[in-house]
Amino acid sequence: MKILLIGGSGNIGRAIVDELAGRHEIITAGRHHGDVQMDIENEQSIIEMYRRLPRLDAVAVATGGRNGHVGPLAEMSAERYRVGFDSKLMGQVNVVLRGIEKLNDGGSFTLVGGAWQPQAIAPLLSNVYMANAALEGFVNAAAVELPRGLRINLVSPLLLAESEAEYGPLFRGVPLVEARQAARAYSLSMEGAQTGQTYRLGRFD
Amino acid sequence: MKILLIGGSGNIGRAIVDELAGRHEIITAGRHHGDVQMDIENEQSIIEMYRRLPRLDAVAVATGGRNGHVGPLAEMSAERYRVGFDSKLMGQVNVVLRGIEKLNDGGSFTLVGGAWQPQAIAPLLSNVYMANAALEGFVNAAAVELPRGLRINLVSPLLLAESEAEYGPLFRGVPLVEARQAARAYSLSMEGAQTGQTYRLGRFD
Repeated sequence: MKILLIGGSGNIGRAIVDELAGRHEIITAGRHHGDVQMDIENEQSIIEMYRRLPRLDAVAVATGGRNGHVGPLAEMSAERYRVGFDSKLMGQVNVVLRGIEKLNDGGSFTLVGGAWQPQAIAPLLSNVYMANAALEGFVNAAAVELPRGLRINLVSPLLLAESEAEYGPLFRGVPLVEARQAARAYSLSMEGAQTGQTYRLGRFD
Repeated sequence: MKILLIGGSGNIGRAIVDELAGRHEIITAGRHHGDVQMDIENEQSIIEMYRRLPRLDAVAVATGGRNGHVGPLAEMSAERYRVGFDSKLMGQVNVVLRGIEKLNDGGSFTLVGGAWQPQAIAPLLSNVYMANAALEGFVNAAAVELPRGLRINLVSPLLLAESEAEYGPLFRGVPLVEARQAARAYSLSMEGAQTGQTYRLGRFD
């Protein structure tokens, strides 16, 4: 497969390359790194990225840009909620909307989520939960409408072991997820047959 | 209890009044009907509504304003996705954010959702699913942060029997939900003890 990987330089992106580069051709895209430069928050930049690429078999997003405004509920506002919507959510939605024509029949999109409902476990994260939940809604709804056997799934790791120093204080006590496990979920999405799924990593059952 | 019911004149609103008026005091609010006039899409209008009201024990929303842009995925855009976010989602979020100080200790918010993931079953509804999913994320996350024992839940009916003529063609074959059953979910939210829950009505198990 010819795979476009947006966000190839982060923890998940590098693990996806490790998992898939041996058996597929990976084109990486990113704001500062990668084969193609692009800004996921800028729709025109997404359009131009696709214009420069060959036809693809899979598009995988491993970065959502800004995850959302992290702050107490009491201090939230419509404007602050826009952070998660404009970046993490609409950035990835635009990658899908603009990429449909670029994918070969049966191709796939794999997006990145994160902290999921209904298991909100920590304060400060209402924007993050809303954006990730909306991504789930989008993936489910888009799966029903995509043409030509295209598929779409969401990989939602909670707290990466590799990010514990940065995000651990927001998620005390949740199971750690290794980036290579998240990469396996990308493989399942791209190399498997499912669509409309959310693969959740990092919960106690 | 003293209950503020936003959207008391629709199918669900009337059923809530039928269910609860015998044992609670209900103040209704709406754009054109009710004891208080307000526009849920206008944050200032929400602030002014609360200013005119006494302290409350529960706030129930039975109208989400506009549900979202209904249209094919291939014709969606960031602007069209804003319809569901600005109205159904942020309208209700603002009712919560602005109402926290108005609720007595242990009071509750009950919001209205609708078509839910992961059971997207029909095309044209990606905006609707995203807005409703984001509402779930908000309710889950807000439940963790609300002060003074305040609670928050979401009632998500799929297709009301009373709305079949209008929305039936979008949801062929799903179980019909009577508005009085949805009203019972509002009762469960307000008169029960749960928080952070989504009560889903209208699926085959």
